[in-house]
Amino acid sequence: MLKAKLLCSCTDRTGIVSALTAFVAEYAGNIIDLDQHSEEDTGRFFMRLVWDISSSRLGKEEIPGAIALVAKKFDDMRWALSFGDEAARVAIFCSKTRHCLYDLLLRKQLGEMGNCEIAAVISNHENLRNVTEHFGVQFYHVPVAEADRGEAEQRQREILRANNVDLVVLARYMRILSPEFTADYENRVINIHHSFLPAFVGANPYAQARQRGVKIIGATAHYVTPALDQGPIIAQDVMHVSHRDAVADLVRKGRDVERQVLSKAVRLHLARRILVDGNRTIVFE
Amino acid sequence: MLKAKLLCSCTDRTGIVSALTAFVAEYAGNIIDLDQHSEEDTGRFFMRLVWDISSSRLGKEEIPGAIALVAKKFDDMRWALSFGDEAARVAIFCSKTRHCLYDLLLRKQLGEMGNCEIAAVISNHENLRNVTEHFGVQFYHVPVAEADRGEAEQRQREILRANNVDLVVLARYMRILSPEFTADYENRVINIHHSFLPAFVGANPYAQARQRGVKIIGATAHYVTPALDQGPIIAQDVMHVSHRDAVADLVRKGRDVERQVLSKAVRLHLARRILVDGNRTIVFE
Amino acid sequence: MLKAKLLCSCTDRTGIVSALTAFVAEYAGNIIDLDQHSEEDTGRFFMRLVWDISSSRLGKEEIPGAIALVAKKFDDMRWALSFGDEAARVAIFCSKTRHCLYDLLLRKQLGEMGNCEIAAVISNHENLRNVTEHFGVQFYHVPVAEADRGEAEQRQREILRANNVDLVVLARYMRILSPEFTADYENRVINIHHSFLPAFVGANPYAQARQRGVKIIGATAHYVTPALDQGPIIAQDVMHVSHRDAVADLVRKGRDVERQVLSKAVRLHLARRILVDGNRTIVFE
Amino acid sequence: MLKAKLLCSCTDRTGIVSALTAFVAEYAGNIIDLDQHSEEDTGRFFMRLVWDISSSRLGKEEIPGAIALVAKKFDDMRWALSFGDEAARVAIFCSKTRHCLYDLLLRKQLGEMGNCEIAAVISNHENLRNVTEHFGVQFYHVPVAEADRGEAEQRQREILRANNVDLVVLARYMRILSPEFTADYENRVINIHHSFLPAFVGANPYAQARQRGVKIIGATAHYVTPALDQGPIIAQDVMHVSHRDAVADLVRKGRDVERQVLSKAVRLHLARRILVDGNRTIVFE
Repeated sequence: MLKAKLLCSCTDRTGIVSALTAFVAEYAGNIIDLDQHSEEDTGRFFMRLVWDISSSRLGKEEIPGAIALVAKKFDDMRWALSFGDEAARVAIFCSKTRHCLYDLLLRKQLGEMGNCEIAAVISNHENLRNVTEHFGVQFYHVPVAEADRGEAEQRQREILRANNVDLVVLARYMRILSPEFTADYENRVINIHHSFLPAFVGANPYAQARQRGVKIIGATAHYVTPALDQGPIIAQDVMHVSHRDAVADLVRKGRDVERQVLSKAVRLHLARRILVDGNRTIVFE
Repeated sequence: MLKAKLLCSCTDRTGIVSALTAFVAEYAGNIIDLDQHSEEDTGRFFMRLVWDISSSRLGKEEIPGAIALVAKKFDDMRWALSFGDEAARVAIFCSKTRHCLYDLLLRKQLGEMGNCEIAAVISNHENLRNVTEHFGVQFYHVPVAEADRGEAEQRQREILRANNVDLVVLARYMRILSPEFTADYENRVINIHHSFLPAFVGANPYAQARQRGVKIIGATAHYVTPALDQGPIIAQDVMHVSHRDAVADLVRKGRDVERQVLSKAVRLHLARRILVDGNRTIVFE
Repeated sequence: MLKAKLLCSCTDRTGIVSALTAFVAEYAGNIIDLDQHSEEDTGRFFMRLVWDISSSRLGKEEIPGAIALVAKKFDDMRWALSFGDEAARVAIFCSKTRHCLYDLLLRKQLGEMGNCEIAAVISNHENLRNVTEHFGVQFYHVPVAEADRGEAEQRQREILRANNVDLVVLARYMRILSPEFTADYENRVINIHHSFLPAFVGANPYAQARQRGVKIIGATAHYVTPALDQGPIIAQDVMHVSHRDAVADLVRKGRDVERQVLSKAVRLHLARRILVDGNRTIVFE
Repeated sequence: MLKAKLLCSCTDRTGIVSALTAFVAEYAGNIIDLDQHSEEDTGRFFMRLVWDISSSRLGKEEIPGAIALVAKKFDDMRWALSFGDEAARVAIFCSKTRHCLYDLLLRKQLGEMGNCEIAAVISNHENLRNVTEHFGVQFYHVPVAEADRGEAEQRQREILRANNVDLVVLARYMRILSPEFTADYENRVINIHHSFLPAFVGANPYAQARQRGVKIIGATAHYVTPALDQGPIIAQDVMHVSHRDAVADLVRKGRDVERQVLSKAVRLHLARRILVDGNRTIVFE
């Protein structure tokens, strides 16, 4: 079975589902999964369509053009098409912290991340080269000078281009990307914020949490936008804490929830389950 | 906006989604929500389709016939259609225990249960008449003699028929229904089992749980079938427990999870989000 | 078995546990539960001690004096003593919203709230009189004029005094209490905030949550202090949400988590499981 | 600060806490954490006592004898003492499956497992040597012949003795240990069962779960006893699943919950937070 996956969104009107599913039925194969959602308050239409193209009358290369023809009927439709035999190419950015990097590399090895390739790990430190290479992945050390971030970003972009990278995952990468970078990679950079946003924005959230005496801590995975920590939220989760948890315990619990949330967000992205609408996500889990 | 909701299942083949959505687009209105799922291992097709019929070219009464025509194309299709302006009629069976009854009646009053009417509360005891009438619902006392369950069931069926009841909810009802009753109300009787099935089947699960020293207790809502506690599971949830929880604490925690799970199952049923396939449910949440 | 419960806190030093438990062993009975915690970073000592006084050599009325003698050895010790046969007297403040009121009254009736008496329900509206009286509790209607809050508070205080109220529970009470009121009832007023503090402080958190696209909503129970929504947090919990949840669904999920969190906080308070230290709570669950 | 940790249990009577804390106060230092619990239904007493011995009047080597003297007063007291500067020595048994092994080795490296040493990894296969050595841990390949398990166990025991191992962790080890082995290592072998016990005992629980249509899957960590999968439960957790989860998804979710539950159980054991009483555990979290 070879799957095609279509994500699309537009202003809602009658006939969108019918037009797309009729096209699939007539030319392109058998539908496996369809999730569709129209929002009454915003008038927006969202759909995820997965079908088996192994019995398609169209060649794989003809399908995008055909989808484009159907999409033309609906003025403002934005759509993205992918095929199950095309592995997404992922780059992981990290600094010194290792738990998220290990988690992503191990899950990839266990076959949990779907059809993808970890094309590169890029770090501003050397210390995780050994971890990266243990999993057979190419490691790039790109130091980032405080004074001239631009030079580092230029090098990072070269690596991304050379490796045909589709998705950048910030696995506790401690440097801020420029607005130009995040604009060019719109909805293709996923970050893990070690807090339950919008609470405790900014540095050292666990110390803040301990001081405020909260009973829950969390983590948030989001697409990166030029506005720091304000991008569309993909996934969040929490853990219960108590007065017995010292800051070190909060950090440990935080690591667990960060791993879970980041890997979930990446898996959802790679499975083409996320649509971005303004500053929100529609996640067809 | 007036919504039509269609649930259907059949053997999977090409063109089902297209045929149904084309019908809706051409005659019957604008699709609001569509969830479709095909299972590779069983070859089964499941779909939930919700559309706005306020601009339909067909009268409401013409729609079922039209759906039947489309369904005919797919040999073994089973389908059920409902409209948003038709309130489901619910009967609650209970015994002496009150927490689930209160929960359902309160949620109905708060508008959380969708478009439904609690048509009757039927109990084999008198003690919850006051609770029922506080919420303005009709209470029926139907004693159940150990020796002759049949007479009580006959009386219960009369009440259900007289009130045009679509769904029976067993809110900690402590008597067993006959196979004839559950067969006649197939997939229309929901029970809450005060345990995380399939663990601790049978009586007094909390004492069993305490004795085994488990760290989690749970509850299970399921459709009732002639095989006791073996019907299709709709919803389950759990709570963490510890050695500090005496049996009374387990009972309290159990009440909380029972309420949550039972009301969720009823809400999902009333929102037409559940398809039954053999002994499993497909729940389009 | 008759239980005494002692909560105490002070600057940590050697010998505190020993002094108190030696007193209990020698004069006052058998220890049932002891939780003690010293914080390395703050140097604070916290303890909860529960013992069976049925075989005590001291009369119940002599125990406080004896505890005071032991406590004198530790300069800044604050302590509170209670006995299992003394029912705490609770007043519930509410406005028009009913789910938290129902939940507390029902849990009291089910025996889940420990040894307490709901002495009064006080509301600035008439609509929940019927609910209150259904549970056999006295209802007081105290309108609150925008212009003169003071007069209403005077009337509320009279009712609290007349009923010997120990604990005030704000069950979605929509008016703000004066700093004088909250100072006089320090650590004896529990509020439920319909948000996961410190996110979404202020009005209409569910609409804020929907707009921000968060994947989790929560609720926070806290002691009320003059600083709005800033008092010591007692309990928090969350529920997962998705794009499919309209604001009405968020409100429903919010109700569920509010009920759970508020009743948990009240139960912990009544079981003498909470110590307040500055703006944080130590909760011996 | 150097900590001593005492776990003890016996038949409850007056004066136990006082006797032990008086000893600590007089000779041995300042109490940091004390958890005590007496069970009304069984009449059993359980306590965990942690104190700082840096100012103790007794030498570290004198403390066990002194504790023994105090314990003598209470006929059937069982107790275990440990010191914070003594690293527990852990051996991990595994087969071909890697996720639990990675998790434990990584958590040790991150400092999350307290004061312990992973002294050996023992496997009946060669394939995880590379993973083990990546973390700088000694790997032993001990094949297990179907016909003669005894020979393998003899070799395993030699390795455990040579490495002074205190705790054996079965990280998805697929062979059954002999009753003699588990008896000799009573309460010192922790296993992860890939199911929410007591549901789905036995092989292939995820396929069983999918077939039964459950909405939750779980995992259980327990001490190993001669009765297969029946030993005292230490920790359990669950994850929600739906019809959309194929068996491969259940396996992935199962891995996540297995990791969490196993590492939690090991951490609790190493922190001396677990008392075993018959077939149940008392866990002072």
